[in-house]
Amino acid sequence: MTFKKHETDQNKKVAVIGCGLIGQSWATSFLSAGFDVSLFDPLEGVTALAKEKIKAKLSDLQNFGILDNKNWSDYGNKIHLAPDLSEAVEGCFYVQENGPEDLDIKKELTTKIDAATADNIPIASSTSGIPASLYASGVKGQYRCLVAHPINPPHLIPAVEIVPAPFTSETIIQVVKEVMVSIDKKPLELKREIPGFVVNRLQGALLSEAFNLIKKDIASAEDIDKAVSEGLGLRWSFMGPFQTIHLNAPEGISGYVERYEKMYGEMFNKPEIDWSSIVKLGLQEELQNLYPSIEREHYEKDRDDKISKLSFLKIMN
Amino acid sequence: MTFKKHETDQNKKVAVIGCGLIGQSWATSFLSAGFDVSLFDPLEGVTALAKEKIKAKLSDLQNFGILDNKNWSDYGNKIHLAPDLSEAVEGCFYVQENGPEDLDIKKELTTKIDAATADNIPIASSTSGIPASLYASGVKGQYRCLVAHPINPPHLIPAVEIVPAPFTSETIIQVVKEVMVSIDKKPLELKREIPGFVVNRLQGALLSEAFNLIKKDIASAEDIDKAVSEGLGLRWSFMGPFQTIHLNAPEGISGYVERYEKMYGEMFNKPEIDWSSIVKLGLQEELQNLYPSIEREHYEKDRDDKISKLSFLKIMN
Repeated sequence: MTFKKHETDQNKKVAVIGCGLIGQSWATSFLSAGFDVSLFDPLEGVTALAKEKIKAKLSDLQNFGILDNKNWSDYGNKIHLAPDLSEAVEGCFYVQENGPEDLDIKKELTTKIDAATADNIPIASSTSGIPASLYASGVKGQYRCLVAHPINPPHLIPAVEIVPAPFTSETIIQVVKEVMVSIDKKPLELKREIPGFVVNRLQGALLSEAFNLIKKDIASAEDIDKAVSEGLGLRWSFMGPFQTIHLNAPEGISGYVERYEKMYGEMFNKPEIDWSSIVKLGLQEELQNLYPSIEREHYEKDRDDKISKLSFLKIMN
Repeated sequence: MTFKKHETDQNKKVAVIGCGLIGQSWATSFLSAGFDVSLFDPLEGVTALAKEKIKAKLSDLQNFGILDNKNWSDYGNKIHLAPDLSEAVEGCFYVQENGPEDLDIKKELTTKIDAATADNIPIASSTSGIPASLYASGVKGQYRCLVAHPINPPHLIPAVEIVPAPFTSETIIQVVKEVMVSIDKKPLELKREIPGFVVNRLQGALLSEAFNLIKKDIASAEDIDKAVSEGLGLRWSFMGPFQTIHLNAPEGISGYVERYEKMYGEMFNKPEIDWSSIVKLGLQEELQNLYPSIEREHYEKDRDDKISKLSFLKIMN
């Protein structure tokens, strides 16, 4: 089973269950790639609102040249607002669940989706923290359950973490990865579950050290941010940490480690970091001054605009 | 004392001591901003070679639209190949030292530069690991010594770490920051010295966790890289870690910490990571397969081209 864009001779309908920000972004990605999308949300009126938000997101993508300039109706006609779960999943080859981050709710929702959906259809969850081995264990179709965790803002960031439970079937993992590739996502596959998955662990490690630098009063948050936004992040926007160090020594990563392991080792004789107490040292005030709440929407829009332009740049490469 | 670009009515000559890759990049940045540059290297022939490399770097910047299309001679005429140290520093308002990462050599070189250079002229070192309190302690003009550490590739990455020793004068720190701003660098100031400074500590923290994920066999290096290059890095190319989390919760960083501190804390009950043993688990081979040595130059050029385009994009914003 392979899913390719712009093929009309096969089932191209996906179900998006839960239509908040994440669900809207998933729908935007699927529509961009030519798929039909069924939207369902247990709360009244949410899918209609989601349709409007999706329209705006698609329009943004067009403005940045990331998406072809088709008419809204070409996309709008492919959105189906489903009145209930069973109609939402009917005829779909893929289900993306975006329920609340609550184990009990997710268990119940997964059980319902499983009961309503034809066999062998993957049921992927957007959860950022609850592994499938917890929320899908004991569900009849647990073999087809796994996590497909997107990164915020999900309609713009290509990376998606694919996190199978021990009981997830290998076929389902492969199909979900193919689906991701077919909508221009870059799936990264975890071999097994780990708290925080990969993305949040990497982010957490960087954040821990950033908090540590604040605690030690080495630099302001603004200056620490510059080390990334005007330094490390320029490389990282198209090159991961391993590729970076592999290219930074003539012998590759082995030479880099031989040369720099001692230096890095000497940096990190630190005790555990208590974030809460550090944030109280004035970090909130500093960041609030730099990026005031009242301009929050401006900063969010600016972030998304920049990622859009960056995406365009990366496509052009 | 303020240094502004395109002002011709004042001393605009800087000395670049040590003309390997880092010295060449510094010269490129100063020339781009309209300064005159004196080059000196103790090894015969190095400055003449450096001049050729600088020409190529300036030409690249022009091709990417980051630098005005002036003739090479407009830049070439501003490069002075000095036969010795005292001629190199003569009439300069700023000295950037790029000697080897060896404490004894750096001590000796700093002492010589200090003796040859007029009072109150800043003497900045590009060292990535040796603090000024070690290499400049006891030097007569230690008050004007500090680290100005650039990030590779230095002619393209704006961030520069300014790391004063306890004995560095406040005036010198401010002047060096102004010089950096005048050549379009983004100085980040450390309040005090710490092993690895800020940039390498942040990079080291991310790398430590990346190595930990390899050790635990969670994902391939290629997939871990994707979490950054197709995920976190897109934001980080224009937004630091603090700004990122500040914008990721409606209440700002306090709300983010309140919500996610527990989650991050649960990720990191890990012992110290032994990089060497991890790299032997096949990491070198994996990266070598992905990015073979034989195509090293291609990858390096590709990296620099992409950063150039990204720089252009960021300038346009």
